[in-house]
Amino acid sequence: MQQHGGNVWEAAARYGVDPAHCLDFSASINPLGLPAAARQAVVDWLPLATRYPDPQCRELVRALSRHLGLDGEHLVCGNGATELIFLAARVLRPGRVALPVPTFGEYARAVCAAGGAVLPVPLDEERGFFAPLPSLLEQSEGIDAVVVCNPNNPTGRVWPREEVLELTSRAASRDIMVVVDEAFVDFVDAPHEVEVASQVARHPNLLVLRSLTKFYALAGLRVGYAVAGVETAQRLRQAQEPWTVNVLAQAAAVAALGDGEYRRQTERWLREQREFMVGELKRRPALVVWDTAANFVLVKLRDERWTAASLQEALAPRGILIRDCSSFAGLGPRFVRLAILGREQNQRLLAALDEVLA
Amino acid sequence: MQQHGGNVWEAAARYGVDPAHCLDFSASINPLGLPAAARQAVVDWLPLATRYPDPQCRELVRALSRHLGLDGEHLVCGNGATELIFLAARVLRPGRVALPVPTFGEYARAVCAAGGAVLPVPLDEERGFFAPLPSLLEQSEGIDAVVVCNPNNPTGRVWPREEVLELTSRAASRDIMVVVDEAFVDFVDAPHEVEVASQVARHPNLLVLRSLTKFYALAGLRVGYAVAGVETAQRLRQAQEPWTVNVLAQAAAVAALGDGEYRRQTERWLREQREFMVGELKRRPALVVWDTAANFVLVKLRDERWTAASLQEALAPRGILIRDCSSFAGLGPRFVRLAILGREQNQRLLAALDEVLA
Repeated sequence: MQQHGGNVWEAAARYGVDPAHCLDFSASINPLGLPAAARQAVVDWLPLATRYPDPQCRELVRALSRHLGLDGEHLVCGNGATELIFLAARVLRPGRVALPVPTFGEYARAVCAAGGAVLPVPLDEERGFFAPLPSLLEQSEGIDAVVVCNPNNPTGRVWPREEVLELTSRAASRDIMVVVDEAFVDFVDAPHEVEVASQVARHPNLLVLRSLTKFYALAGLRVGYAVAGVETAQRLRQAQEPWTVNVLAQAAAVAALGDGEYRRQTERWLREQREFMVGELKRRPALVVWDTAANFVLVKLRDERWTAASLQEALAPRGILIRDCSSFAGLGPRFVRLAILGREQNQRLLAALDEVLA
Repeated sequence: MQQHGGNVWEAAARYGVDPAHCLDFSASINPLGLPAAARQAVVDWLPLATRYPDPQCRELVRALSRHLGLDGEHLVCGNGATELIFLAARVLRPGRVALPVPTFGEYARAVCAAGGAVLPVPLDEERGFFAPLPSLLEQSEGIDAVVVCNPNNPTGRVWPREEVLELTSRAASRDIMVVVDEAFVDFVDAPHEVEVASQVARHPNLLVLRSLTKFYALAGLRVGYAVAGVETAQRLRQAQEPWTVNVLAQAAAVAALGDGEYRRQTERWLREQREFMVGELKRRPALVVWDTAANFVLVKLRDERWTAASLQEALAPRGILIRDCSSFAGLGPRFVRLAILGREQNQRLLAALDEVLA
């Protein structure tokens, strides 16, 4: 079993915390909760939970198509972006994949499960876990694909759109596929300076993954999508298992995408709390803190007597969960990822950190 | 896109039928609807839909373990049995798989997607689509696995447990895996004379697939499970993608398994309506009807001027959906599969058939 954040069930089993009420800083989910429209959609659609889901996700594709201003032919819906990571690996079957690390662990797992191998490209801690993207290709001989998580999980760093597109163009000339996971792009201040989903029609070697589970707090319902050139999208759909996106997830996602007020509230909350949390964390001498464009912060414990694991153990009995990042390739035992939650929750985390690390 | 029953969304798009109120005889789902406890569980657990699902499905495994009297180590939960069909194919990677046909189409698709090939073993219409199972091995040279759907979809025929176990034992001596899909076994009159999930501890080459979507009407929520020897179950879990079973499906399934009254009502309904429907259909000279142990009936249109497709087209505008079986290997254009629904619904189907076929 791969290690992940957000495992409130594991925490419930190990520490007796209440899954409904613990403060989960280990998963980076919008603390505003389900959009009201999505909650209502689940209740309204419950009688239809006895029907098989629409395997083509017609309504959801239409809603996404409107939302993105892209033809539905470019879209593939999935049981969370995770399904699409594994589906893409099986369909593209890359032999060798360049992967800037640290990053989300399921890319490597999916590539290996599909018979490929990963070529990790380390992002230096000293350079703020950053490297110019186009240079990635020079460092990577004999690759068939590159996977870029943008903003990157767990570092919170973004590559600007131009860099991603330049990488994509250079990759095209060498017949290399570029997969960009934009699971957290909705949280970025100016998404249009970062996202490349809107550019797939011009770049047949580009595949973009998106999630609705973080921004719209639908993690438990599972819904994500892929955006790609028409041919790639069709190959993904043809290889896809039927009925992967459940009826309630489809209904909730459609409703969530129509909830503009929720998006505005989310932007207000995040602008305020990201600044607050990054500022507060940076004031703690015990912590090294990286700037973030996403809704989480990567933090290193300066004191070598602490590890992420021991901090996790100290906070869990208080009902506070954090992500021990030691399972991320390229990070040591002293990195943690902290979600940015609501003001009061963030303050409780800060107080607990002060108490525990004192 | 593979053709399947239960596509009320396709029917809505093509014929303007209402997905909530059409009579869907094309998917074989318990007409009693969601168990009351499952409906309540969805509402109660909705606040937890913002959390990632438990990737290990702890509560659900515990509930299934109690329900089946089997240790949890034998169990793997999935996003419907469909996920587990494809997962099993990827993990077992059989080169050549014997498959009695006609049967559910996703086995062949999963085997081929995993790089294997299917050896179809035709079940003769003249023999009621039946053949003794153990003889399957004699007809099938060089196979690595056999897949048996029991009761078989779409024929409704069952093989008795002894035959399945004899097949399994003979297969073991030739290192052949036996996969038994028991998606509809809960509908059988005496499941203990048919099911082999309870026998996995004694047969390491046996893998059983089960569904909760038909019997408990959770098709839209998606939940199924696999039962296998400890080693096989572990291999499946290790290869599985995380978070495939959503929070509400897990909660609803746990609640459904605890609803004994729903099971008794289902047994009463099915005993009565199966006899009623099979009897009534057999009285129609236009139809050839096969006896069934499941909650659906295979029917052939005697009159060559009718096809399943034309009957489907005739009934759909009346809000009645049936399964055109022409996509099942081994069946011609004149076979339809009809779910057994509630008394009033069944009577409406019979009346519509009489009108249309007159």
